[in-house]
Amino acid sequence: MSLALDPSRPEDAFAWVERWSLSVGRESVPLTVAGGRVLARELSCLKDIPAHASCACAGYALQAADTTGAGAYNPLPLLLEAEAGPIEHGRALRVADGDPLPAGADAVLLCEQATRFERSIEVTSTLAPGDGVLLPGMECRKDDELLQAHRRLRPQDLALLGMAGVKEVQVRPLARVRVTVAHRSAADVLIPMLTALIGRDGGSLLPLQGASQQTNMISALREPGADLILVAGGTGYEEDDNALQALQHCGEIDINGVCIHPGTGTVLGQVDTVPVALLPGSALACLCAYDLIAARLLRRLSGKQAPWPYRRRRMALTRKLASAIGRLEVARVAVDGDRAEPIATAEGRVLSTAVRADGFVLIPAQSEGYAQESLVDVHLYDEYD
Amino acid sequence: MSLALDPSRPEDAFAWVERWSLSVGRESVPLTVAGGRVLARELSCLKDIPAHASCACAGYALQAADTTGAGAYNPLPLLLEAEAGPIEHGRALRVADGDPLPAGADAVLLCEQATRFERSIEVTSTLAPGDGVLLPGMECRKDDELLQAHRRLRPQDLALLGMAGVKEVQVRPLARVRVTVAHRSAADVLIPMLTALIGRDGGSLLPLQGASQQTNMISALREPGADLILVAGGTGYEEDDNALQALQHCGEIDINGVCIHPGTGTVLGQVDTVPVALLPGSALACLCAYDLIAARLLRRLSGKQAPWPYRRRRMALTRKLASAIGRLEVARVAVDGDRAEPIATAEGRVLSTAVRADGFVLIPAQSEGYAQESLVDVHLYDEYD
Repeated sequence: MSLALDPSRPEDAFAWVERWSLSVGRESVPLTVAGGRVLARELSCLKDIPAHASCACAGYALQAADTTGAGAYNPLPLLLEAEAGPIEHGRALRVADGDPLPAGADAVLLCEQATRFERSIEVTSTLAPGDGVLLPGMECRKDDELLQAHRRLRPQDLALLGMAGVKEVQVRPLARVRVTVAHRSAADVLIPMLTALIGRDGGSLLPLQGASQQTNMISALREPGADLILVAGGTGYEEDDNALQALQHCGEIDINGVCIHPGTGTVLGQVDTVPVALLPGSALACLCAYDLIAARLLRRLSGKQAPWPYRRRRMALTRKLASAIGRLEVARVAVDGDRAEPIATAEGRVLSTAVRADGFVLIPAQSEGYAQESLVDVHLYDEYD
Repeated sequence: MSLALDPSRPEDAFAWVERWSLSVGRESVPLTVAGGRVLARELSCLKDIPAHASCACAGYALQAADTTGAGAYNPLPLLLEAEAGPIEHGRALRVADGDPLPAGADAVLLCEQATRFERSIEVTSTLAPGDGVLLPGMECRKDDELLQAHRRLRPQDLALLGMAGVKEVQVRPLARVRVTVAHRSAADVLIPMLTALIGRDGGSLLPLQGASQQTNMISALREPGADLILVAGGTGYEEDDNALQALQHCGEIDINGVCIHPGTGTVLGQVDTVPVALLPGSALACLCAYDLIAARLLRRLSGKQAPWPYRRRRMALTRKLASAIGRLEVARVAVDGDRAEPIATAEGRVLSTAVRADGFVLIPAQSEGYAQESLVDVHLYDEYD
């Protein structure tokens, strides 16, 4: 079989990405390391949170009825309890924020709403029952949804889970990614970049291999334990291209080239049931092919909801952006306020354009580009989730 | 001295944050773990990148003059070199993307611009010198700026540094943060939240201590090695509040309370030259006080450029948002497209409002709030850098 490049339409490559199943795995992690992880399943509330009434502020627990009529010109005295215990009519107890509400009390007075004396206070505000109190179930009621499945856990979610008594939470496992660079000379350039990209997209990098021979490439493709295999470099367009040969030898080539620029030489396939992407060896094409295809696949495998790695924002172009018909173009742009300035395409293959750029615009294969002042969606390099 | 709460204006707390110096430390880390770190100093380019001309695509290295006039209806034959070596007139050599440009060659023909035979090709496109070639210095010229100081390193930056031969890069150290929770009952709720927040803001959490006694609190404040100390809980408003007492005992209280809501009980001070923030013990107030004050300080200490933890976006309010004069209010909102919907303020002290919210609006102390349809800046919980 010929291994000559036969570039597919970008839509076919995107459809290939979507043929791979969303992550359904789960693993249990302690709350302290769960920030940013993707919740594996919906969590419902097993008991009212809080379970008991508690003080919502530091101050004095008391019976609201004892404050009726109190004000700056009508301070009402209450005796201070020396120790924790039930609060009776005419008495108050100093409490800290978060303390259980003492029996008998139905409100908590802020410190600044009273003048303190050694064994009593004078109340200067009128409270209603429930003021300064967190009632049972106020955070979440038993059997209500606590957190949705697929939620990327925020810091405050972890606190809510802590209140619910949860110590460990089930999240999507990080997808295990094996990276092999076909030519050693490219490893110093591509491995640090791919390591950072994979971390961003929820992957966990398996120990690195530096295969430069076809035999090593084959063993890298066959070694078990990966959820995704990325090979960078060695994806030229001919029979003597070892990554392609190795993939054909070990598994299947599904897509031999994609009409994206930079990144046409991208090859997609599989070994057993593990997806494999052969990425171009030049750094810019490798970055673009990774972002457009591998990142989206990795995000599926690791349970992330947003399919594109970068956030997008609509902006007007400062000047026209031209593109050849027939390929999806990744056009780097600099952002100035709400406007996007195309970066010289004469330097089209130069990685430093992506270093100088703030993001990129995708120009569809059927488009010749965009006129000046067109509104375009800019994918922002520094904004992702 | 009385330790009674004496809330400062929010501006005074922000000014206190800015009194602490920006990070000037640096540490050297390998490129593979440098993604997302903040570059300590400008890097200039020590040699042209690339140092030598290289092939910008896979294909055939040749002399452009040999392709003059070639086209689909006028294929021009070239002999294929069997081995790497200088390219003479009338000859071509198969090259991979990223290979050094062979001596004698001045252009690289894409594979699809030729028909291949066993020992020759027929060229079907006319090239100009430099086509398909990456010239010396095209990525970056010797002595030009490679990357700016304070840049948060992107994946592609690491590839550019790899091209420059850099193996390790000097970045701002992660600021070391000691966290103590004054009341053990709060630790299960606050420690996971603060751990995630500190990681987000470029801090490195020191081994945790769970001091619940004043003596322990004092030792936590005095133990060396932290760049920032956070104490959560134990910040009530009176003399029997142990975190306040400990701070007064070990160092200085600079600000005893801040007019922010939630989070009035926040106390700022120092022990020797280390900043200390006492945060409220209720989770929502702790989150707000952290985000408004501690996060900004931590970002200074770790060299991050953006002073606010969250990205902001301007949106119209779906209904009015009221606030008491005299305090800076953190009003949680849900985002629906380009509109922000206030979340019921009757649940003002409930953490789950911040779980349900997509972000918050800050209402200045001198404002009574915003009318329906007002444009406000929403701080987005899921967007940060």
